[in-house]
Amino acid sequence: MRFVSFQHNGKAMLGVREGEHVRVLGDEMLESLLARGTDLCDYAKTNASVETIPAATIRFLPPLKHPPKIICVGLNFADHTSESKYEQPDYPTLFLRVDTSLVAHDEPMIRPRVTDSEGLDFEGEIAVVLGKGGRHIGKEQALSCVVGYSIFNDASVREYQFKTPQWTMGKNFDSTGAFGPDLVTADELPPGIKGLRLETRLNGNVVQSANTDEMVFDVASLISIISEGIKLEPGDVIVSGTPSGIGWARNPKLLMKAGDVCEVTVEKIGTLRNIIHDEPAE
Amino acid sequence: MRFVSFQHNGKAMLGVREGEHVRVLGDEMLESLLARGTDLCDYAKTNASVETIPAATIRFLPPLKHPPKIICVGLNFADHTSESKYEQPDYPTLFLRVDTSLVAHDEPMIRPRVTDSEGLDFEGEIAVVLGKGGRHIGKEQALSCVVGYSIFNDASVREYQFKTPQWTMGKNFDSTGAFGPDLVTADELPPGIKGLRLETRLNGNVVQSANTDEMVFDVASLISIISEGIKLEPGDVIVSGTPSGIGWARNPKLLMKAGDVCEVTVEKIGTLRNIIHDEPAE
Repeated sequence: MRFVSFQHNGKAMLGVREGEHVRVLGDEMLESLLARGTDLCDYAKTNASVETIPAATIRFLPPLKHPPKIICVGLNFADHTSESKYEQPDYPTLFLRVDTSLVAHDEPMIRPRVTDSEGLDFEGEIAVVLGKGGRHIGKEQALSCVVGYSIFNDASVREYQFKTPQWTMGKNFDSTGAFGPDLVTADELPPGIKGLRLETRLNGNVVQSANTDEMVFDVASLISIISEGIKLEPGDVIVSGTPSGIGWARNPKLLMKAGDVCEVTVEKIGTLRNIIHDEPAE
Repeated sequence: MRFVSFQHNGKAMLGVREGEHVRVLGDEMLESLLARGTDLCDYAKTNASVETIPAATIRFLPPLKHPPKIICVGLNFADHTSESKYEQPDYPTLFLRVDTSLVAHDEPMIRPRVTDSEGLDFEGEIAVVLGKGGRHIGKEQALSCVVGYSIFNDASVREYQFKTPQWTMGKNFDSTGAFGPDLVTADELPPGIKGLRLETRLNGNVVQSANTDEMVFDVASLISIISEGIKLEPGDVIVSGTPSGIGWARNPKLLMKAGDVCEVTVEKIGTLRNIIHDEPAE
């Protein structure tokens, strides 16, 4: 099933997509349902209301607006590691996002006013959403913890990312982490989202194109390795890394500016689309 | 006033310290009070119950167990930057912690089983807790956003911290971020906690000793700079950086092992004390 979070009459609501419509389920959101161990597909069947809304009119929210954790993986495609001038580490390169950085499908991604002309860069990725957590999760059990997948554009303010040895600031500007539109349950996708095409387009031009098979650390490995140190929780999001093609590594650089449209398409999951706005002046 | 979060009859409770006792306020915790804009001192006066508990018998919780964000500052004392073999950046070096890494005063800090003998290192710091948030907070307004201060031991699994270009994993093992015991309201401390002595002791021996005046970026600057990109929220915690003396930079190295007792004392705030335990074998 495909779950969508959206605003409806000024309230955050959860629904399921049915073709061109979204069927309203209620105002309990995915964070809460997952925290109390709800089976999402059972919940959707039991709580389906008679109300449907045309998907084209929906104002989306991120599938989860307040995940317990947003764990991002850097340097997880060898060709991206190489274009970024890093040696490929033999351990996942992790960084964290705060939820104030999230932005929904079809909402503007914001190019901050403090940045210079080198601005905001795109990074198309797949978001893994956990339905179960734990510590020391074996690789064989890891995929059973995944409730579903979505799409992420891990947009990065490169000059801030590289001001210090840690990328944190450049990865956490408000409204730079686009997430959505649908949470697609794992049963509808290949195990560990193996073999799917991921493509990023800027103003219609393909700028990133890769297959998920090229990930250095696959989804099961990421869950297993992270859980050796960190207690994973239902609702945690793992953003699994971007392939090569980022604007910063191009010559000349290709960064995003106001009015640009950035789309990330993942086969069988969908398309995440955002227009770029400049942060208003003071 | 000095607020403490603690477990009482199996429930998380908030209280205020009165000498050798803690007066019970209720089960609404600081995250919730701050999120709804409560004046903590007014709240304590209005909600003081008749029940007091000897402080010596209290089982503490971190002052906030689920802050919206835990933003840590690296390389914020020049002598620590130098011992860590980094160039001093002219911008704050930020990294994030997840709340699963927090551990309370007097609870064991856990040396993870996956680490080798170089294990777990101490980092005594001051935690800044925000009562108000916002974006683009001017340096002159920044201290008015601080509700109070506490103590933090940003214990680090060094071999994991340096496995990749990002420190995230080494900073986020479960039960490595000790936080507490008291949240001391800002009115009881010098503005921006200027001029206070910070000391870390391992098994009674002083291993870090510094004055908060030595911070490269002071509290007001940190709030102002971070808020240029990130929306700060009530309850956010900024962990303001450690001085020199860390065990990893010593020759021979001085890392923490099971049975060690680590204490961080900050003048006018108190002492955060933790014993080290090994994570149990599988």
